[in-house]
Amino acid sequence: MTSGLKFLVAAKRCEIAELQQLALTSALVNVTGRLVHALQRERGVSNLHLGSQGARFTDMRQQQIEECRRIEAELRACFDSLDTDTARVGHGARLFSRIAYVLQGLDALDGLRARIQSLAWTPRQATEAYVRLIAGLLAVVFEAADSASDPEVSRLLVALFNFMQGKEFAGQERAAGSALFASGRADAAEQQRLLHLIESQERCLQVFEAFANAKAEHLWTANQTSATLAELERMRRVLCTATDGAPLNVQLSQAWFDCCSQRIDRMKAVEDRLALDLLRTCEDKIAAAQRELDAYQALSAASNRDADALSFFHQASAADNAAPTTANGFAAGAQGYGLQLERSILELVQEQSRRLQTMGEELDTVRASLNERKVIERAKGLLMAHRHLSEEEAHKTMRQMAMNQNRRLIEVAEAVLAMADVLPGRLR
Amino acid sequence: MTSGLKFLVAAKRCEIAELQQLALTSALVNVTGRLVHALQRERGVSNLHLGSQGARFTDMRQQQIEECRRIEAELRACFDSLDTDTARVGHGARLFSRIAYVLQGLDALDGLRARIQSLAWTPRQATEAYVRLIAGLLAVVFEAADSASDPEVSRLLVALFNFMQGKEFAGQERAAGSALFASGRADAAEQQRLLHLIESQERCLQVFEAFANAKAEHLWTANQTSATLAELERMRRVLCTATDGAPLNVQLSQAWFDCCSQRIDRMKAVEDRLALDLLRTCEDKIAAAQRELDAYQALSAASNRDADALSFFHQASAADNAAPTTANGFAAGAQGYGLQLERSILELVQEQSRRLQTMGEELDTVRASLNERKVIERAKGLLMAHRHLSEEEAHKTMRQMAMNQNRRLIEVAEAVLAMADVLPGRLR
Repeated sequence: MTSGLKFLVAAKRCEIAELQQLALTSALVNVTGRLVHALQRERGVSNLHLGSQGARFTDMRQQQIEECRRIEAELRACFDSLDTDTARVGHGARLFSRIAYVLQGLDALDGLRARIQSLAWTPRQATEAYVRLIAGLLAVVFEAADSASDPEVSRLLVALFNFMQGKEFAGQERAAGSALFASGRADAAEQQRLLHLIESQERCLQVFEAFANAKAEHLWTANQTSATLAELERMRRVLCTATDGAPLNVQLSQAWFDCCSQRIDRMKAVEDRLALDLLRTCEDKIAAAQRELDAYQALSAASNRDADALSFFHQASAADNAAPTTANGFAAGAQGYGLQLERSILELVQEQSRRLQTMGEELDTVRASLNERKVIERAKGLLMAHRHLSEEEAHKTMRQMAMNQNRRLIEVAEAVLAMADVLPGRLR
Repeated sequence: MTSGLKFLVAAKRCEIAELQQLALTSALVNVTGRLVHALQRERGVSNLHLGSQGARFTDMRQQQIEECRRIEAELRACFDSLDTDTARVGHGARLFSRIAYVLQGLDALDGLRARIQSLAWTPRQATEAYVRLIAGLLAVVFEAADSASDPEVSRLLVALFNFMQGKEFAGQERAAGSALFASGRADAAEQQRLLHLIESQERCLQVFEAFANAKAEHLWTANQTSATLAELERMRRVLCTATDGAPLNVQLSQAWFDCCSQRIDRMKAVEDRLALDLLRTCEDKIAAAQRELDAYQALSAASNRDADALSFFHQASAADNAAPTTANGFAAGAQGYGLQLERSILELVQEQSRRLQTMGEELDTVRASLNERKVIERAKGLLMAHRHLSEEEAHKTMRQMAMNQNRRLIEVAEAVLAMADVLPGRLR
């Protein structure tokens, strides 16, 4: 094998290894999504339980906790199966760091459940605890999307992450609405929060639609039956337009929960579909890359003869480049034009470089959509450092600013960052 | 060891693995730089040799070829020592693909030398052949800079790459000027090319100055003696302002070559310094990360007791966050406050996440400077596809456009990309 061909093969092996790592990460994302879904239900039913002063929803909650424990065990096994001894290069540190955070949260989950059981925590406190754990789980999915080295897989992961994040906003809406109905009294601040959650979820779903493949998007559209939507919008109107302090029908708490749950469960079906597409895409790409690798290696067996190495310095003419070398063209070249073997290897090398470069450009485009979230995180960090806030408080502050100014969170984050230069002290 | 701590440790291991890979890549960059330097000299002396119709510079050229062969052997050994069987994830494919290309060129080098020996190629053809091979070598350095996962190392690699690229433009200027003096007659097109090479090298050196550490920049300033610079600028004036077709002093060919060489050799000293800084920075960072890893592992031995896991859900108060957790703070916590152990691990996990996030942001900033080159590559690809040009022809076309319009190459590239939408056919 010539040394050039050896590295052509090595580059292809790297691509395959990255795709295999992506497949593993995708499987992890799948289980993570299932745990998020189960925890969303546990959060909702815990709120109902707390709202009823522990009088109702006890069995339903217990069943849901059992389901969460089953999926948690599955996710922990999934984490354990990650090869943490062989350090992964390329985003490994960030993924593992996110997982470490999630595990700290999972370790604390039974303590949280005990507080809810003994009615020691308010619905609001309980909700925020679940929100924090679920945010940690979603950060794992975000890291997976940000680290994907293949643009098509990255697209699917971005679509999936935004769908999951949108679904989480829907879940928070369900919890906040349940608590508000259960309290029996309209509250202006909570109503603002609900409107904000609705807007946030719609924005996530727009990103999902921009990045999902046609099939998943169609499934999503088909799954939104107009009857459910109409009912949801009717109850949203009742919740959000009641005058501050006006009475709300406590009985609607359950109806609201069921209506939201129906929608969220349908979202789960779309999510499952996306996760399946993701795994299949990884598998297809691994198979295709493996075929190319086999072709390279078949070539290597026949490539010990002398060839016109000087073609490296020949300027390819316009005619040569009119039909660019493809994986197929290469196969024909290998079998049919033995004398041009070295030339073919050079063309293969150039073709590989170009393809990797194009992939890099496409990746940059897809990842740009993740930057919005990064800007928000950066602004949060700035507030934490400057105003000595906790992460939670910084997030609340920005959310409050967004609600008060009727602006999107990203706009507030950009405004915060723009202020960085005029704020006192070392902030960056 | 708690499972959260296990992944905290795993994340740190990933960081160390990435730094070790960076150290290997930096060593590779170092040898690559030395071969580039030797090939630049070989190109220069080959031009002198061809310019004299094979009458002079024969021994000098032969000695230079021997030196190139020695360093080439060293670089090939360096390539071979890369573990191509264990696929590297994270930019591995792109690095290996660049190396495959370089190896094809190195295999063709003796053929090129034979053509020069037999005077079969013109100085221009020979120059272009060396330019192509050196561009391939510099692409390896570029890939290394683009793949670095640590912002400080990335900064140094960006500075080094731009310095090497600037030095290559200086080398091309030396070759073009030598040939022009040797031809004995001024030529408007060649003069334009010289001016363009001078401008390009100045732009690269500006980027170098923006990214280099103070020491390297100081060394660079100190190395540019005003006497050499004045002599270079005087000869540049003679070369570039002579009327088209006017006679040039053939004897100045050697003086020009020597003056340029003196400057380029001094550039090599700065480059060596940068390469050394790079290796040391990698080593320092590996040692620091290793110390942190040891501290984590010492902690793990003591962390089997129960702790307040529920702190995951506690909102850290403003006071807690006023003094952010540092690696030192953590060590004190581990020894002094055993009861707060879990709390400490949680803080460590959060601290790690924040640090990785900050590093990611800094990396994005540093890498932005590499985007200019990527834009140029993309525009080249567009021209190749649209006008059926070879890579060389596409590059020449853009260079010509830049010269004619007195614009920078990046501006031409952006204009080409902006035209993409109005060009006929499938271009993207």
